[in-house]
Amino acid sequence: MKADLTIRSHLRDYGVHFVGELAVPLRELADGHAFFVIDALVWRTYAPVFQAVVGEDRLLTIEAVETNKTLDKCREIIETLVDRRVRRGDRLVAVGGGIIQDVTAFTASITYRGIEWSFVPTTLLAQADSCIGSKTSINLGDRKNLVGNFYPPSDVYIDTGFLESLSVDDIKSGIGEILHYYIYANDDALDDLLGDYATLIRDRGLLSTHIRRSLEIKRSVIEADEFDRGERNKFNYGHTFGHALESATGYAVKHGQAVTVGMDLANYMSTTMGLMSDERFQDLHRRLSVNFPEYDLATIDLEAYCEALSKDKKNMGDNVGCILAQDVGILFKRQLPMDETFRETVRRYFLEFSPGKDRDVRRADPR
Amino acid sequence: MKADLTIRSHLRDYGVHFVGELAVPLRELADGHAFFVIDALVWRTYAPVFQAVVGEDRLLTIEAVETNKTLDKCREIIETLVDRRVRRGDRLVAVGGGIIQDVTAFTASITYRGIEWSFVPTTLLAQADSCIGSKTSINLGDRKNLVGNFYPPSDVYIDTGFLESLSVDDIKSGIGEILHYYIYANDDALDDLLGDYATLIRDRGLLSTHIRRSLEIKRSVIEADEFDRGERNKFNYGHTFGHALESATGYAVKHGQAVTVGMDLANYMSTTMGLMSDERFQDLHRRLSVNFPEYDLATIDLEAYCEALSKDKKNMGDNVGCILAQDVGILFKRQLPMDETFRETVRRYFLEFSPGKDRDVRRADPR
Repeated sequence: MKADLTIRSHLRDYGVHFVGELAVPLRELADGHAFFVIDALVWRTYAPVFQAVVGEDRLLTIEAVETNKTLDKCREIIETLVDRRVRRGDRLVAVGGGIIQDVTAFTASITYRGIEWSFVPTTLLAQADSCIGSKTSINLGDRKNLVGNFYPPSDVYIDTGFLESLSVDDIKSGIGEILHYYIYANDDALDDLLGDYATLIRDRGLLSTHIRRSLEIKRSVIEADEFDRGERNKFNYGHTFGHALESATGYAVKHGQAVTVGMDLANYMSTTMGLMSDERFQDLHRRLSVNFPEYDLATIDLEAYCEALSKDKKNMGDNVGCILAQDVGILFKRQLPMDETFRETVRRYFLEFSPGKDRDVRRADPR
Repeated sequence: MKADLTIRSHLRDYGVHFVGELAVPLRELADGHAFFVIDALVWRTYAPVFQAVVGEDRLLTIEAVETNKTLDKCREIIETLVDRRVRRGDRLVAVGGGIIQDVTAFTASITYRGIEWSFVPTTLLAQADSCIGSKTSINLGDRKNLVGNFYPPSDVYIDTGFLESLSVDDIKSGIGEILHYYIYANDDALDDLLGDYATLIRDRGLLSTHIRRSLEIKRSVIEADEFDRGERNKFNYGHTFGHALESATGYAVKHGQAVTVGMDLANYMSTTMGLMSDERFQDLHRRLSVNFPEYDLATIDLEAYCEALSKDKKNMGDNVGCILAQDVGILFKRQLPMDETFRETVRRYFLEFSPGKDRDVRRADPR
């Protein structure tokens, strides 16, 4: 089967296939000595789809919770693989979102010095973003994504049918990452996405053009800088501030929506430093806030937030490593000292720009 | 500093340097934000050498015991690295033998998605063999080397001065691996090594030509097949049977000597299957047994040995995956069913060819 997108990677090139009938590749994988690691919720929702092709002794279901993204969980899976007599030539198939992807890919990368894995992403975030790029991420204690490596899949199968069962928040989370690629690339699709926002949240099949465009933008960068040493760093735009938001809210705010706020906060930082015009910040804030979470940012504990920021692995010394923007399409890396000015800027942002503050803008939100 | 050998690798090319004055590269590494992971015994033996260049907060000592080659130990090290504020751009320096190498390299490979590491091998086995080739190996429960990946160092510094403090068994262990490379390559150095055996064990500086030759043979294969999918498999010669010997004797027999016996047992298998002439087996047995352990093989529990064999990750189905030989330089892969004939062959070998059975040959042994 010819891939819709092919990604060059250091270990192997791999294809992304947009599939109408998932059963076909599923059966092929199952026949080829695959072992399935399936999101427990996906399993509960779509059990018959998988039962038709995969034997019970060749699958494991895992709850897609952050507390499962650990070395202990990976060891547990490896023990299961050994018990089930999975061999070097077999492959793992991850079915789920980013957490299932991370756990499966990392496990595959360290079992028998690396076995192949395939991926069926079921969330918008995984379909439009994480399914390509080779990164794996495992938490260590309270340090998010501190452990990991680069381990590409052998192929990716995208079935947008899975999006139907997602919550509105999960769709918004995926849209957050798509927004961030569009802003990075200064892509016209940004206006289309925001213009059709309410429709896309209802009619998810329409998201497939955005999924493809998002992956195309990502591909152009990861092929040139797979190991994230230069240009790819810019994809951290919104992520340093976003991760800390996830952490400080106990993951009440989903990743992609946290990234949306994170981009806005990064822009606010840029503005206070005279690097972005106030006009541009206001304009982008108006557009980004369409995809903000329902969370009242003013209630966030500033200390907890800064503590989370201080643990980011991109930091150097006592500085916070982040990506700032001058404008759409003009991003750059900065190490910001976490001093009083920094804290005050964050505090002011949370007070002034929390969703509650701009109800007028949020009318675009269909909920 | 120009390297004595350069190794091409999928992630980075790296150099092997034979150094007269280790302090020079050590200081350079220490100045470049390195964090040292040092074999506790090496530390106790050479503390002043390291104290002169490395601050106490930039080093960790680890006992080189098989029970430290675990995911738990790696996690512990990562926690230490985070506590000591080791960052993405820093590097780890492993000082010790294969166990310290495995733990350090694997830890480096999964910390912050991979940080660089350098290696100062201090055992003959690490200097002549494991220091190149990218493999990392971590045990999972009683399954040896089940976890791991391919993660090359950035450079290797060989100081044969470390060999002075090694036990005779450790030297013999290293010689076992050198023998195995010479037999693979049908290299003339095999006769030199066996001819000078007693001298080399006393005067270890003389081993450096064998270290270099051994690495050259290994390099020629790992550059073409780093991921061990074809030709490199042949380096497993003696290893499947050797690992099981280590395991069944509770690691009383050291790795390279277990490999020496493993090669002999593989040859015996070949002979019983009519693949190697009895004459060639007897000739090779006479030569290999010079490097045999003191262990009475006749006392080995056959069940424990076969149980260990059955867990080898190279097995397919219920067969034992191993490398057999037709002659010196002619090796091939085989999956052997572990049936009664197989067990009987192993039993007979242990009874007939245990070191105690050929004292005449063992006169070459200086101990």
